[in-house]
Amino acid sequence: MNRSLPPSLTERGDIDLDPQIIETYCQGGRGEKGSALFVARPRSTQDASDIIALCVQEGIQLVPQSGRTGLVGASVPDSEGQHAVLSLERITGDFHLDRINRTATCSAGLRLSDINARLSPEALCLPIDVGSDPCIGGMVATNTGGSRLMRYGDVRRHVLGLTVVLGDTNGTIVRLGGALRKTATGPDWKQLFVGTGASFGVITKCTLNVEPTPKHRATALIALPDETALPDLVLELERRFGSLLSALEFMSANAMRAAYSHIPSLRKPFGSDLPDIALLVELSCDWLLGEADRSLDDMLIGGLVKIAESGAANMADVVVGRAEEVWAIRHALSEGVRKQGRLYAFDLSFRRGDVLRFRSEMKGRLAQLFPDIEICDFGHVGDGGIHFNLVDHLATGDWSPGRERLIRDTVIQAAVEDFSGSYSAEHGIGPVNYPYFDTYASAETKRFSAALESVTSGKRLGRIHFSSENTK
Amino acid sequence: MNRSLPPSLTERGDIDLDPQIIETYCQGGRGEKGSALFVARPRSTQDASDIIALCVQEGIQLVPQSGRTGLVGASVPDSEGQHAVLSLERITGDFHLDRINRTATCSAGLRLSDINARLSPEALCLPIDVGSDPCIGGMVATNTGGSRLMRYGDVRRHVLGLTVVLGDTNGTIVRLGGALRKTATGPDWKQLFVGTGASFGVITKCTLNVEPTPKHRATALIALPDETALPDLVLELERRFGSLLSALEFMSANAMRAAYSHIPSLRKPFGSDLPDIALLVELSCDWLLGEADRSLDDMLIGGLVKIAESGAANMADVVVGRAEEVWAIRHALSEGVRKQGRLYAFDLSFRRGDVLRFRSEMKGRLAQLFPDIEICDFGHVGDGGIHFNLVDHLATGDWSPGRERLIRDTVIQAAVEDFSGSYSAEHGIGPVNYPYFDTYASAETKRFSAALESVTSGKRLGRIHFSSENTK
Repeated sequence: MNRSLPPSLTERGDIDLDPQIIETYCQGGRGEKGSALFVARPRSTQDASDIIALCVQEGIQLVPQSGRTGLVGASVPDSEGQHAVLSLERITGDFHLDRINRTATCSAGLRLSDINARLSPEALCLPIDVGSDPCIGGMVATNTGGSRLMRYGDVRRHVLGLTVVLGDTNGTIVRLGGALRKTATGPDWKQLFVGTGASFGVITKCTLNVEPTPKHRATALIALPDETALPDLVLELERRFGSLLSALEFMSANAMRAAYSHIPSLRKPFGSDLPDIALLVELSCDWLLGEADRSLDDMLIGGLVKIAESGAANMADVVVGRAEEVWAIRHALSEGVRKQGRLYAFDLSFRRGDVLRFRSEMKGRLAQLFPDIEICDFGHVGDGGIHFNLVDHLATGDWSPGRERLIRDTVIQAAVEDFSGSYSAEHGIGPVNYPYFDTYASAETKRFSAALESVTSGKRLGRIHFSSENTK
Repeated sequence: MNRSLPPSLTERGDIDLDPQIIETYCQGGRGEKGSALFVARPRSTQDASDIIALCVQEGIQLVPQSGRTGLVGASVPDSEGQHAVLSLERITGDFHLDRINRTATCSAGLRLSDINARLSPEALCLPIDVGSDPCIGGMVATNTGGSRLMRYGDVRRHVLGLTVVLGDTNGTIVRLGGALRKTATGPDWKQLFVGTGASFGVITKCTLNVEPTPKHRATALIALPDETALPDLVLELERRFGSLLSALEFMSANAMRAAYSHIPSLRKPFGSDLPDIALLVELSCDWLLGEADRSLDDMLIGGLVKIAESGAANMADVVVGRAEEVWAIRHALSEGVRKQGRLYAFDLSFRRGDVLRFRSEMKGRLAQLFPDIEICDFGHVGDGGIHFNLVDHLATGDWSPGRERLIRDTVIQAAVEDFSGSYSAEHGIGPVNYPYFDTYASAETKRFSAALESVTSGKRLGRIHFSSENTK
């Protein structure tokens, strides 16, 4: 710390200068490390506003931080130590369920698991399915997707109202939207605070649509003869099951092999055979089936049999009903791949028809350019998302940061320029991918963002700015 | 016309100065009338851009116009005749269905019915259900809701990409978003062009998520003993049927009586008895039921029987299965009410639990203040929307515009200030309700909008501006 801080800040009970505390709050979800002047942990919107106002007056830039589960480093301060961390995880005091309106108002620091635990007795849930346990403020600021996006959409779809603190000298508190399910009274400004980190303002509270908890589920894992069978199968499944489908997740042989080798306790549904590609299918419904009704398992089996009989899509093998076992494999893929070696993780999305085209194109290109790279991909084929993970088997002594940069640029250039895809499907923007934002965001995006930033935070909040190529 | 127009405009084949044409395009969906310098009817994004650039250079303000079905006068020029109409209804050249991605790219001038006719052979649809047949550009610009919002959401939910022409001297063409079902690469600026008329830019093309067409439907009309039975019934229906529910529409006795008296051909499901309030319930599903499966009618009947047996909610009478007859009544309400006398129509929304509280509070207040007013309301109780229609039976000789203003202010003040409701649930902002925007929009909404407007249209497009109290 090489600057003196005013007592108005240091004497606050919610400001911490302890180096150990600071170190804890300077670590990111993928092991990133930074440093900071101090950590502020307000307990209310008003306290957050007071701290922001003081910091703006003192010229101290704040890096707002939610549950520290993000995957692009957006909430980790840089290593120069001149920023302060504004943690929102202690703003947890408000939770209100409006049962008739089917909406929940939540403080930003409440964890997803906590919100769902509170909703559960009412047979309601916030249906965003992710591997980690983020705070809701960060979920809104990232516009989290997850495994059931094809049914329930992203977080944006569920946000009805936000309380936001702007980065001005007053720490102005703004309420955008409310608890209404629809209103058409002009610009819906809350949309610009969804998915933009805290660049325009800090979210301290939100009102969300919540959904009835599914009452029945059915799961199948389908082994495909090869990847080319996938698009027809997806179309046939949608044609037969429509919005009964709540997940369509594909897993490559390499990703499954990585999971099996590092988590030996996983059951292997297809025995020792590992299909080239497997598809996890989930049906679910939030209404009560009667005693005489077919179970979802039976509906799923019946539909798959008809698809097989009609020859509309090819399946090599099918396992139905072992939901826990099947989802355990799916959830183990990230960890398995991470333990496989040096990992370059990409969170891409495409038009659904381009997922396989991209995959097969990149197999060829990478084999030629980088023969030590192993593709261990999996993803959300129902919505075009693909976690395109590359494991680098090059000997450590031969490795260089330039190699990683080259590989990253190669993949992202192909995804965006050749396939009109996204270089960040659901993880947002942070230091990990800020250079690609700079390259690929349109001039209008930057121009509009600069105009908004000028009346909200003026670059005093957040580590990421959407207005220019300057991250500071 | 009291100004001379340059040949660069008047010599264009898509600019019309014929007074009869101009008159046609100066009429609104609720009989509003205005006048204009000319009508421009470009056939492409590029032509729209050229016309906008020329008009901006000449200082001519444009009022963009879509299908002329709007209900708040937003696309009708004022009576001073100094604006020009920019009609988008001839921009119809592009329609592309990406079957695998389940998305459709549509020119702004395509009608909802036309889009659905093109999607129908593929068993797909744009599931926005409204009484009129608007063009898709205007639907996006209004963020249309409709009768099935509780299942499918508003238009915003389905918009993946937009092509927009800004109101600058170049008529800059901007592409926002694309065909991806998810992407988290920073500010989603297209959101600010949804539901804001053409105040920030003119939408000429869009890419939309489309949905599988429902394969089965079941409909019931339930007579309630009185309005207080409604909330419990709605909760019970949601608990039993979850997302099988695609519509929950309530109709008051007065609204039904108006429909019956002006459209004698309507069948009366409850005979000569008219319940105080009736609820239209629709279930639908987009998957194939098997031969052994219960029909949706049977599921609906079974659920209603269980609700009745359990005593969880009160129902006086139920008619199941006469879908056409029942929807015919629902769709006749607007016309019936309009023919009932002098109409003050309100498009309000509330938290769902407040719909009845507002209704019963207003019954009392209006009876006291304006005894000649008859409340003929109906609406979307599943999403909190209520078309709160008032018919004024005061003798014409005693009527004055001041009376109408007073009644409108009374209703909207109560809705917004006493019940935190919306004064425009799904019709958007126009001259009809602009004064309420001025009163109730927050300072931040106006401030943020001014910042965006400064880099998009600078008030050269659209009749409505969200930045200040000056509509000119």
